Parts: sequence; C-alpha cells; structure tokens
Amino acid sequence: MEQKIIYTNSVAETVDKLVDEIKPVNIVVITDSNTAIYVYPKLAKESKNVADARLITVKSGDINKNIDSLMEIWRGMEAGKCTRKSLAINMGGGVITDMGGFAAATYKRGIKFINIPTTLLSAVDAAVGGKTGINFAGYKNEIGCFCEADAVIISTLYFETLNSHERRSGYAEMIKHGLIKSHKIFNELIEQDVEEIDKEKLLGLLTESVKIKEEIVKADPKESGIRKALNFGHTIGHAFEEHSLKHGNPISHGYAVAFGMITEVILSHLKLDMPTKTLNLLSSYIKEVYGIYEITCDDYPELISYMRHDKKNSTQENINFTLLKDVGEPVINCTASEKEIIAALDIYRDLMGI
Amino acid sequence: MEQKIIYTNSVAETVDKLVDEIKPVNIVVITDSNTAIYVYPKLAKESKNVADARLITVKSGDINKNIDSLMEIWRGMEAGKCTRKSLAINMGGGVITDMGGFAAATYKRGIKFINIPTTLLSAVDAAVGGKTGINFAGYKNEIGCFCEADAVIISTLYFETLNSHERRSGYAEMIKHGLIKSHKIFNELIEQDVEEIDKEKLLGLLTESVKIKEEIVKADPKESGIRKALNFGHTIGHAFEEHSLKHGNPISHGYAVAFGMITEVILSHLKLDMPTKTLNLLSSYIKEVYGIYEITCDDYPELISYMRHDKKNSTQENINFTLLKDVGEPVINCTASEKEIIAALDIYRDLMGI
Repeated sequence: MEQKIIYTNSVAETVDKLVDEIKPVNIVVITDSNTAIYVYPKLAKESKNVADARLITVKSGDINKNIDSLMEIWRGMEAGKCTRKSLAINMGGGVITDMGGFAAATYKRGIKFINIPTTLLSAVDAAVGGKTGINFAGYKNEIGCFCEADAVIISTLYFETLNSHERRSGYAEMIKHGLIKSHKIFNELIEQDVEEIDKEKLLGLLTESVKIKEEIVKADPKESGIRKALNFGHTIGHAFEEHSLKHGNPISHGYAVAFGMITEVILSHLKLDMPTKTLNLLSSYIKEVYGIYEITCDDYPELISYMRHDKKNSTQENINFTLLKDVGEPVINCTASEKEIIAALDIYRDLMGI
Repeated sequence: MEQKIIYTNSVAETVDKLVDEIKPVNIVVITDSNTAIYVYPKLAKESKNVADARLITVKSGDINKNIDSLMEIWRGMEAGKCTRKSLAINMGGGVITDMGGFAAATYKRGIKFINIPTTLLSAVDAAVGGKTGINFAGYKNEIGCFCEADAVIISTLYFETLNSHERRSGYAEMIKHGLIKSHKIFNELIEQDVEEIDKEKLLGLLTESVKIKEEIVKADPKESGIRKALNFGHTIGHAFEEHSLKHGNPISHGYAVAFGMITEVILSHLKLDMPTKTLNLLSSYIKEVYGIYEITCDDYPELISYMRHDKKNSTQENINFTLLKDVGEPVINCTASEKEIIAALDIYRDLMGI
C-alpha cells in the first residue's frame, strides 16, 4: 500500500473509511498529554473506531521525544495485545508523528500506521515523508528509520487550538516550500496575514504546500539527492534551535528555520549570487512576523559545531547546505567554509539590527 | 545496493574488497564479549580495515539482546563519530547480527552494514534475510525492522571454535531448509555425521542451504506470503524455547526448532496427510542427534499461550503454522485448534518415549 495523503476537514469520516479499508484486528491511538485533552475528545466523539481504540498517551514536548517515551508506547502496544495486523493512529504534533511512527515501524518489525497531524508545523513538515525517530545522546532525531505512514490526513480542523506562535512556526515551513518551489507560491504566502487566514483558505494553501513536499519525497524517499532541497534553512536553523535550547531560551522549530532561512539566503547570495531582492523581501518579512533571534560573535564556534554534527554531513569536516540560486532553484550538496559561514552570520546580525 | 551474499573462506580479503567498494568514512565493528576474544583477533590480524575500526563490544548471550545493549551500540557509534556514510560490521552469532543490524538500520535513520556470522546457526539463519531486532517485554525479537545487510559473508572459517552443541544447533536450521526444499537435500543432510564434516565440505552444504533461504526471501522479503515457509518448525519450536527459558533449563534455538519440527511434522500428518515415513525418519534422527526435550501434559497450556503470542498470528485467537504436505511442499497459513495441537504434543511425547 502506497502512502495516501488525504487533504480534508472531514477527519472522522476519513479515519473510519481508512479503518474499513485496512481492517485491523485492533487499533491504538498514540498521542501526547496536551492533545489527549484538547483534540482527542473531538475526534473520539465523531469516530467510534477512535473512541473504542486503546489510548496511549505520552508526556508532551520535544524533551520527551526519547527512548523512555518510545518504550512506553511499545509497552502500551503490548498491553493492548497488538499483533502485526493492528493499526496505530498517531495524533499530535511532530513529536508524536515521528515517535509514534518509529514505534509502529519497529513493533513486531512493523505495523500499519496513520498520521493525523494536529499542528500546522507537523502537517506541513513531520507527518509526511516517512522520517520517523527520537532524540538521542543530545541530538535531534538521531535514532529512527525511513518508514512511510500508510495514510496521512492533512486537515486544518484542529488548528483552532493553536496559538499565534504555533501558527507562525508551521507557516515558516510553508514559506520554505515556497522558496524552493516558485516566486508565485512564495509571494502568495508572504502576502497573507498568518493570523487572519480562515480554516478553508488555510487548507488550500497547506494542500499546495504539502504537495510540494510530497512530490520531492516521491522522487527521492531516502534523501540521496533532491530530497535534500527540503533541508533548505535547516542546517543553520537546527544550529539556532540547539543553541537556543542549550542557553535556556528555546525557540520553536519553525522560528529557528525562519532565522536559518535568512542566513542561508545570505550564504546563497555570497556563493551562488542569489539576488538581494529576495533576501531583503524575506528578511524584512521574517523580522516583522518572527522577530529577531539574538546571537553574538561569541556564539559562532558553538553554532558551527552544531552544524558539523548535522546528519546531512558525510564527514564532520564538511558542512553540507542546500542553497538557492534563486527562488525555485535549489542547489543541493553545497559546502561552505567556516569563513563564509561567519560572514553570513555577520550579515544576518546586520540585517536584524543586532 | 542489493544485498550481496558471498560464500567464501577468504573472509579478510572479502571484507577489504567490500570496504573498497563501499568507501565508508569510517568503520565500527560490533561484536560480543566472546567473539571479541576468540574470533575478532583472527580477522583483525588479516584485515587492516578491521584492525583500525572502532570496536564496540556488548555482553554475550540472548539475555543481553535488549534495549540496554542496543543503546550501548548507538553510544559507541556516537563516540566513534559515525556519520550516515559510516559502515558497521557485525561479527558474531545471531544476537549480534540481529541487534547490530537493528542499531545500524536506525542510527541516523540507517547506515550501511555487513554481517559476518561466526556460528553455524547465525550463518544459516539470522545473518541473511533482513530481520533485525531485540527482545522486549519478555518476547523474542519483539522490536526490530526489516533491513537487509548490504553484504553477508558466509564462511565456515570460524566454526572451529564452536562446540558440538553449537554445531548441532545450526545444523537443525539446515535440516529445516532441507525439509521445505527437497527429499534430496534433506536426505543428504541426515546422512552426514555433523561432528565429522570438514570445513570445506560444510561450506558446500551451507551454501546450498543458505541459497534456499536467499531465494525465498528474495521472493517475499517482508513475509507476507511464501517467506512464512521458513517458519516451519518455529511456532512450536519458539514455544519450547520460551518454555525452557522460563523453567530455568534453557535449550538453544536450533534444538528447540528440532523438537518443534517433529511436532509440526506430526501436525502436518494429522492435518495434511504428510507420510509417516518422513515423520519416523525425522524423529529417530532428531532423537539420536538432539536427544529429548521433556514435557508433561501440565505444560500444554503454557506452551499454547506462547504459540498464541507468535508474531505470525494476526489475532491472538488463531495460531498460525507452516506445515508440510510432504518434504519440499510447505503450506503456509495453516491454523490448528487447541485440540489438534494437544494431540500432536501427545504423539510427540509418545515418539520420544516420554
């Protein structure tokens, strides 16, 4: 069964239809303590399959995306007498779709699973594309596997519970898709007021955005080539994210990617002559919507050490980037010297007025 | 890269050739504390790649095929600065090829790995076919994934360190391949004296045997159909194995499969009219070479409960078997009632003179 991505706000109906097709012997719903309170009851009310399933709830937050929570999920599957013909439904943000996906992919060497992302970020990013995993040894998603969900239900139905910060975080990944795809989509996105987009309009924009990812993943599921385009903004973005975590002032993934995109567009300008017009457009948009992530030159060595550890690197000497020649023209497997990275970070600070 | 199975007693040379082809940025060798002492030094002496690699040693024994050892391997990979372009070499018995394979398949979502089975059992069984995993929650191989090694080196070079018990244990899986493949191979195997077969002769028999598995796995890597033929003897065999462990008198996997095969041949006779001639031939051979596994009728409920938990079952109500219409004619997805299983266990005890 190939992965099905279903774009709809009729979630309960879709779940029931999928269950009818898959015919599992039983079902577990994997969720986190927040989603269990704020979202799960809504779906359980409308879908008997979900209401009757065994609920496995782990603690919320990226800090709990670890081996202990993973074991809790496996134990929940054991307690629920899951067999190879059981179905797992992952309902939550990226932590749940990543970790629940990994649990399902490895329980009895793999059972079927469905992702129902409940945040904009996980809908546009984690829930699609088959990357599953947990954090380990202080590194993000260090342990995991490639295993596509049997189905993903992309909806905006549960985004009402998201605060403005969470909406912006997800929107940053949509902007990334715009930047690697076309001027048209990029411009369409930055013209919207992210606070004001209604549920149906957002589902349209989200569908367009997830389809960009879907197409790329289909062409290169295991990230040996073009899928690396999706890493645009992420080499430096991840470094910002880890830096913020280390210094007790964590910023969310989407925000980190937003600041990472500015810095990687600067690097794209330095190395591939990306036009300054887009750089200015992007940096003023990000500054307005996401604010500023403050760093000093004293932070550079630490940031660069995080970049070195990125999974995309084949050695820890070379740092791998996806850069842009222009909007819609990603170039994978670029490397940059420390000097160039430092120059880009300097310009980032200038543009941000730090 | 498709899985390569290389049949040779020039192991060091083959490793070096594979490393030249794969060109990893670095190498880790994963092994257990026994293999590290008795086998690893031999290979390290002949292969500079192996000698220079970081050695990750976990405690020997199936009891250590668990999440703690798995984490030790992952941490060893971190300490060895492994990237996605690193190579893991799993050297040892089934515990190491299964667990090292799982560690490699999940480290940074998967790095390349080579299996060098050092026991007859792992050469004929675990090292080939892509099943990786660890024990969990008291169940064998409960957590894992399907992920084929990039290469497997099948050799008899290190079997000198095996005792007679270990040789017999592996030989049982070869007999299983004979039974599911042809009278010719089955008869050829039971005519040998397992103690007396020399290294080169054994490599020939082993090659023939592993090729049977290779062919089946190629046709059905994820065990949705014909691969279940390889489970012949294993539904009841696993139950004997777990029973023996629970009662503080553990028998090795191959022995358990040997006794499981007798019982499943009885079941095959009861349900599919398998000729009694083969049953008598097999049971007298097994009794002579493997002895007797003693059970009483009081053990039946416990044995049946282990059979119910088998990963091959789609529900815990039906127990799935692969049976034989005759030698070379496996029939997958057979089910048997408790009454039939009890009848087979009764006949097993009769034949064994218990």
